[in-house]
Amino acid sequence: MAQNKPKITERKQEVINGLKAFGASVYNQLDQGVFPTVNMPSRSTENINYDPNTRQYILGEKYVSRSARNIRHIKPFTQLAWVALFSNELTSQRKTSTLRDVYYSAQAYEMTFSDQQESNNIITDLETFTGFAREDFSIFPEERSAIFGDLDIGYTVPGYEGKTVNLTSHPDGVLIGPAVTSSEFIKTSADKVIAIEKGALFTRFIEENVHNKHKSILISCGGQAPRQTRSFIRRLHDELGLPVFILTDGDPWGMHIAQVIISGSANAAHLRQLNTPDAVWSGVWANDIIDYKLPTDPLDEVDVKRLYELQRDPRYQNDPIWHREIKTFLKIKRKTELEAFSRYGLTYIVDEYLPTKLEGKK
Amino acid sequence: MAQNKPKITERKQEVINGLKAFGASVYNQLDQGVFPTVNMPSRSTENINYDPNTRQYILGEKYVSRSARNIRHIKPFTQLAWVALFSNELTSQRKTSTLRDVYYSAQAYEMTFSDQQESNNIITDLETFTGFAREDFSIFPEERSAIFGDLDIGYTVPGYEGKTVNLTSHPDGVLIGPAVTSSEFIKTSADKVIAIEKGALFTRFIEENVHNKHKSILISCGGQAPRQTRSFIRRLHDELGLPVFILTDGDPWGMHIAQVIISGSANAAHLRQLNTPDAVWSGVWANDIIDYKLPTDPLDEVDVKRLYELQRDPRYQNDPIWHREIKTFLKIKRKTELEAFSRYGLTYIVDEYLPTKLEGKK
Repeated sequence: MAQNKPKITERKQEVINGLKAFGASVYNQLDQGVFPTVNMPSRSTENINYDPNTRQYILGEKYVSRSARNIRHIKPFTQLAWVALFSNELTSQRKTSTLRDVYYSAQAYEMTFSDQQESNNIITDLETFTGFAREDFSIFPEERSAIFGDLDIGYTVPGYEGKTVNLTSHPDGVLIGPAVTSSEFIKTSADKVIAIEKGALFTRFIEENVHNKHKSILISCGGQAPRQTRSFIRRLHDELGLPVFILTDGDPWGMHIAQVIISGSANAAHLRQLNTPDAVWSGVWANDIIDYKLPTDPLDEVDVKRLYELQRDPRYQNDPIWHREIKTFLKIKRKTELEAFSRYGLTYIVDEYLPTKLEGKK
Repeated sequence: MAQNKPKITERKQEVINGLKAFGASVYNQLDQGVFPTVNMPSRSTENINYDPNTRQYILGEKYVSRSARNIRHIKPFTQLAWVALFSNELTSQRKTSTLRDVYYSAQAYEMTFSDQQESNNIITDLETFTGFAREDFSIFPEERSAIFGDLDIGYTVPGYEGKTVNLTSHPDGVLIGPAVTSSEFIKTSADKVIAIEKGALFTRFIEENVHNKHKSILISCGGQAPRQTRSFIRRLHDELGLPVFILTDGDPWGMHIAQVIISGSANAAHLRQLNTPDAVWSGVWANDIIDYKLPTDPLDEVDVKRLYELQRDPRYQNDPIWHREIKTFLKIKRKTELEAFSRYGLTYIVDEYLPTKLEGKK
């Protein structure tokens, strides 16, 4: 696994190269006496398609052009150039930022965004244009999730270079932030990743020694997993070759949390490697409600509406399990939560349910 | 500081003693041929008073009685006994649980709660009756916050006994969960605690080395700090003698996040040591908006309504600063966020604002 080491620093270099290429292209166009122009794939709804091969949303063939010649384009063009400049500063100074910080930082440069939505859009433009995620440009979200398990990582952030730490050192888990996501993977005894919707079950799993008993790296998604966590799960899968199992509440929202880890979101159709197509939604299935006689609540109107939406969603065509489960939810009209297994005792979910699910019961 | 070591285990013993005393009292009453009864302070609104001496909400003189003789009391009485039994099992087996888990676990014992609100109430009864917080009974909330700083702690959870770890080992921070809150404090070079409303600024502070530059333990509250985090801040203050500074967004909600850390909440009037009366709200003040010419948003109707509520809140009478700031908010009709300092560059908040605030500018 040590051969993975150069990946992160290589990627950083690619990011900087991408930003430089943008700068050089603008410079060269100006040098040739033409108004600089950038072209990037369109992110309009009709250009977002689900791709069964890569098993995620991708952008189609439509391109948009931004030219400094066009009076309506000159502002977003300048904003894009500024975001690229700011990202380059962040990356080379090894600092991180947030979407909110970028919005306010613009004022330090007398760069005007009318609101944060506008600066968010320009950051997405930069992602689309370069093919890198904003996290690659050191722009991180506020949301947080956590990790625990026998994985030695080497931090690459200032002050921590060359330090190898093990992710079992703190039994409450370590936050997944800029430092963890930019770390190198050194060594692991784990043979799988278990991603869990809720912090409460993550804590239960640590207490019950799931990381040892089932040789696993545990991830607490904290609800819908933030993009950086989804991309980190992808790295665990790709670089360490670990299969990924996802456990969520037994309702349409939990199901979709799993789906976004597996197939990504339409909002991120312009990016790759945020999703893990081989990851598996292990439960809680609607059929588990029946099989395990779990305590339930009735589906409400919003749940039912959501299930019909998911039924039409192209991502739900990639595995027959989704439609089977949607149908069962609609039939039994009930939903449940991961904690519901506690009706059989606090450790039942670890002793009985989890092993069955990891064997891949269909 | 090493002399603090016995505190946690002593407290665990006190908790178990409290539960045993309850069991013994029920047993003795039955043995004497009388219906068992428990008495506890009433938590009805008219019995919740702000106490200027302890600078927190406390319960008044009114007591309620629950007797197994009363047909309307027999169910909550039994539920209370069961929650005590379950808490005792958790504590002695060194497992943790959540409010949700307790609700479902009851079914394993054929103990019926009509909904989670009912089981939550009974857990609060147990808190009121024994004077211990549910976290002492190993019942933890889902919410999470994080810590970073030069503090050596000794974990007391199974598998980690005797291990001393330093809370700078992971530069994204460590979650504050059952393991951190039950740890012993061994050693620190910090001379203060800085509690921060938002994860984004917590990360910025770590990157900018605030823990070294200002010898501080950094806490990310993750919005309204969960009870376990508030009680952990109190421990840092009491056991290590560290002053506590709180940084929030400059709006009524941020102000109240600070206030709850300082003065506690009415919901927890039956408990002690969840609040830190000596903690200081360092900003962002309404007056900082003026002094630092910060970017702002207008107060909306809900913000204004909230400010008038806070003006009447007894907790806001404990320091003239609160009323001064409420008045300024109402006068300028603007609010701001911690990130707004980025208009002067990403490090301005650390280089300029924070030092001024730590000096205690009034």
